Amino acid sequence: MPTLRLALCQVNPTVGDIAGNADVVRSWTRKAADAGAQLVLFPEMMLTGYPVEDLVFRRSFVAASKAALHRLAADLAADGLGELPVLVGYLDADGPPQVSGDAQPGKGARNAAALLHRGAIVATYFKHHLPNYGVFDEDRYFVSGNTLTVVRIGGVDVALTICEDLWQAGGPFAVARQAGVGLVLNINGSPYELNKDDIRLPLVRRRAGEAGATVAYVNMVGGQDELVFDGDSMIVNAEGTLLARAPQFVEHLLVHDVDLPPAKEPVDGDEELADGMRVVRTKVSDILPAPTGDVAVGGIIEPVADEAEVWQALVLGLRDYVNKNRFPSVVLGLSGGIDSAVSAAIAVDALGPDRVVGVSLPSQHSSEHSRADAEDLAKRTGLDYRIQPIQPMVDAYLANMSLAGVAVENLQARVRGVVLMALSNQEGPLVLTTGNKSELAVGYSTLYGDSVGGYNPVKDVWKTLIWRLAKWRNADAEHRGETSPIPESSIGKAPSAELSPGQLDSDTLPDYDVLDPILIGYVDGDLGRDGLIASGHDPEIVDKVLRMVDTAEYKRRQSAPGTKISHKAFGRDRRLPITNRWREHG
Amino acid sequence: MPTLRLALCQVNPTVGDIAGNADVVRSWTRKAADAGAQLVLFPEMMLTGYPVEDLVFRRSFVAASKAALHRLAADLAADGLGELPVLVGYLDADGPPQVSGDAQPGKGARNAAALLHRGAIVATYFKHHLPNYGVFDEDRYFVSGNTLTVVRIGGVDVALTICEDLWQAGGPFAVARQAGVGLVLNINGSPYELNKDDIRLPLVRRRAGEAGATVAYVNMVGGQDELVFDGDSMIVNAEGTLLARAPQFVEHLLVHDVDLPPAKEPVDGDEELADGMRVVRTKVSDILPAPTGDVAVGGIIEPVADEAEVWQALVLGLRDYVNKNRFPSVVLGLSGGIDSAVSAAIAVDALGPDRVVGVSLPSQHSSEHSRADAEDLAKRTGLDYRIQPIQPMVDAYLANMSLAGVAVENLQARVRGVVLMALSNQEGPLVLTTGNKSELAVGYSTLYGDSVGGYNPVKDVWKTLIWRLAKWRNADAEHRGETSPIPESSIGKAPSAELSPGQLDSDTLPDYDVLDPILIGYVDGDLGRDGLIASGHDPEIVDKVLRMVDTAEYKRRQSAPGTKISHKAFGRDRRLPITNRWREHG
Repeated sequence: MPTLRLALCQVNPTVGDIAGNADVVRSWTRKAADAGAQLVLFPEMMLTGYPVEDLVFRRSFVAASKAALHRLAADLAADGLGELPVLVGYLDADGPPQVSGDAQPGKGARNAAALLHRGAIVATYFKHHLPNYGVFDEDRYFVSGNTLTVVRIGGVDVALTICEDLWQAGGPFAVARQAGVGLVLNINGSPYELNKDDIRLPLVRRRAGEAGATVAYVNMVGGQDELVFDGDSMIVNAEGTLLARAPQFVEHLLVHDVDLPPAKEPVDGDEELADGMRVVRTKVSDILPAPTGDVAVGGIIEPVADEAEVWQALVLGLRDYVNKNRFPSVVLGLSGGIDSAVSAAIAVDALGPDRVVGVSLPSQHSSEHSRADAEDLAKRTGLDYRIQPIQPMVDAYLANMSLAGVAVENLQARVRGVVLMALSNQEGPLVLTTGNKSELAVGYSTLYGDSVGGYNPVKDVWKTLIWRLAKWRNADAEHRGETSPIPESSIGKAPSAELSPGQLDSDTLPDYDVLDPILIGYVDGDLGRDGLIASGHDPEIVDKVLRMVDTAEYKRRQSAPGTKISHKAFGRDRRLPITNRWREHG
Repeated sequence: MPTLRLALCQVNPTVGDIAGNADVVRSWTRKAADAGAQLVLFPEMMLTGYPVEDLVFRRSFVAASKAALHRLAADLAADGLGELPVLVGYLDADGPPQVSGDAQPGKGARNAAALLHRGAIVATYFKHHLPNYGVFDEDRYFVSGNTLTVVRIGGVDVALTICEDLWQAGGPFAVARQAGVGLVLNINGSPYELNKDDIRLPLVRRRAGEAGATVAYVNMVGGQDELVFDGDSMIVNAEGTLLARAPQFVEHLLVHDVDLPPAKEPVDGDEELADGMRVVRTKVSDILPAPTGDVAVGGIIEPVADEAEVWQALVLGLRDYVNKNRFPSVVLGLSGGIDSAVSAAIAVDALGPDRVVGVSLPSQHSSEHSRADAEDLAKRTGLDYRIQPIQPMVDAYLANMSLAGVAVENLQARVRGVVLMALSNQEGPLVLTTGNKSELAVGYSTLYGDSVGGYNPVKDVWKTLIWRLAKWRNADAEHRGETSPIPESSIGKAPSAELSPGQLDSDTLPDYDVLDPILIGYVDGDLGRDGLIASGHDPEIVDKVLRMVDTAEYKRRQSAPGTKISHKAFGRDRRLPITNRWREHG
């Protein structure tokens, strides 16, 4: 029975940085070769990064991806790595991609994988199942492939697949069984969700059974705007046994020897098999030299606690947003409350204390403990702490305008926003905003006030989870004999916006223990009013909460809409990544 | 040859206002009946409004649409209108719609049309071609229909189709020819683009030829967030002759008598025809009483000048955003410049002068003519004019912080934003922001400064078009013997942000006559650097402009991204209309 030493390169590509991503492939292929690998896998859309959104419609971008693929094949050979087959995701197109638009859908591009060997592209595969739900819009961008590519490597027949091909039954995995392959490679850009790792393993097992073959699943890591990719690469054999599994949220080279059945079918042209898919077979090598040295064992990483998993996701997401967009540092307001404290701790874990500026922005309504807790947080984390009282600025507005009530409350939050943006302009840091998901859902925030900022580390974290994260992070620090970053007082105190005397969140909102389950049902679960009440929630509170959520939609979409009159207005019909190193100009 | 009197109801539904939209159907069916109509058509998704985006995933919303359809059929009969066949768009679903998500695509919903007659739903049709490009994401929301519905009305065979069915060759129109129908109804939610009317007519002609039948095309009017629907309903016969055409941007009842061939095929069950589509035939009525009174002639509206068309689109888009979201009024800063002057004139045309507050916000860098031009604009339009100097507030920041350069420039714009938002909180108006598309493209604006606002009337208008619009609007007023709204001085002066002494746009940007063609090529045309240079642009200027556009992406997406950790983060995977009257709560 042949043995193949697989190297799954769980790496962190950057959208648009085609040259940089190609360099990552070269350096990690070197590492894989040093570990004796016989077949190397990189993630989906490795060369371009993922997702590239409407960059797909730029001919120059597609052309750059294709040119880089050819150059990469040559460079790997020049590096002395040409004998090692390398599978890499890239953006392809049948011809020049169409410009999208009415009556002229933007079709023609391919979410593709190429096998590089001896300086050439010896096989390509086009993704068959295109996801078009949740965060995915691949029907907008790509044409489905209808061919299963099978390559013979070391006498083993190996099928190529991409991401969603794994998530839907039928298609490539079913065809792989008919084609009699021993190994299916599945390259991914699969974004993190809490507990998704608990879904992935059974899914890989199911497909391995469907294909009757070992499955090697490699996923990228890293942040891309709202998305964070968590890795979790793994190898599962045809019987469903987990052979190796990489950790989440870190780059990792997973090298593992896999026993595989020898190829049975002749390599002779195309066949038409199930689901209208064709099979195309290519011979790369019949025999490979046996792997050198000891047997390679990739090891199996055990899952971590939910709080640890989320914390790592938030840290990586923020770090990559800041670094990939080349911000030198971040600045955030420190109110002494739990949201800014947790955000600051995430920022310090992501960037180190020297790249985090925390500003206390007291007004006349700020309590003594607010300032003390902010200062305590700064001491615990070592971040760059400043104090900038806002009352003189607030007073200048009050002296020159006739304002009362909520206008005065919001004024304070907006002055804080102006101060933080002025610091950002003056010194360069990215402003972080720190509203949690519960606040965002019900609109309990000030538009252009505390919502000012370029990134929100806790945007998708319900308030009750904020508290759990804080407690976990402190306990984890204590467990490791380190200083816990978050002041106990910030965790224990009653939440308050401190925009009017004695104000508490509970004046306006139900307790978060009551609020969050309703929001989770309504927002995450798409339950209606009746469904929420049937799950046991108080009808009066349900109505109150739903009213707030329904009317807060505008605050969640700050960027002002405006009437579209052209083929490509900014907004709905022009969707580009923010984090994007692609540059047309010289 | 039978004659059918068609009534095309070019109306303005509101997303989520299912009861209100049903009322519109009842009142317009009454008008159509009064005009002797024998068949009445309403737009795509009439009952729910369009597009409803992720509301599709709410079971309660789908259930409400279906229930409203049944109620509407009964109500029309109770109104004494039951004999009149009425075609209405609505949201259907085979079963309870799936919640969208990984490995569980949100499928099952239908973009549907129903024919109501004698208190019942006598036929339904599910949209076949689903657009998934530009502003459309219908593969995310709907399943394709594969049945062509043919109804016999007054002895004529009539096929039902929806919007995109018209824009793609093959499918329903080809099948309609095989089915031998005399009339194809096509109901639309087709958003406006400049000159789209010039594309629509040839397209309707082509499909009429393809079907060998008369085509009745009805489109909605009205604003929905960034989209504005322009109507332009029409009837074209099988030979391609335009029989009747409604005006753009206004509600309109287009009633026209059409001679149609008598049905040839027997009404006997299903047939399988081209493209795998089935045909289902239903008899509504063999004979109708002849239309009463004079022959109905809908008339043919001639196209208007581009500037008039765009102006009407901008006015309607703003009016509906404000009114459908129930804002009492709008407020905007008046700098004396052309962008705010044009925006104010649009606002006054949309809402009347009593609902528009214009605020001059002078700083120490504001020129005398800025204030004079703002005042002149206010006098010409009759809007509610205020003056709020900002220097005291600016000075309060400068006295308490160490700021210089761009931080000081931006500070002034941000103080203006805070003042406008304070007025909004105090008095209730929606803040309008007025950055033109050229500025937005190159990022020539202050984040959280002049970009503050809930709606931007000129978001999609290039600067050179802003000037053309201003001149056209003034000339049009003079032509009608009215006061021209926009001061000549605002049109003629050199553009300036007035944030530092003597500052001009041309210090930073190429002349707009040079800039706009490059931006149009890059943004609207997806041309790359090489393509732009090949079209004759100066390489150095191209590089400068592209650098600005590529780095301004973040400003165009103000709402802060944050790491997604859940199944439904706010943002990419939860897409809801802002203008949305749907309310779950009691």
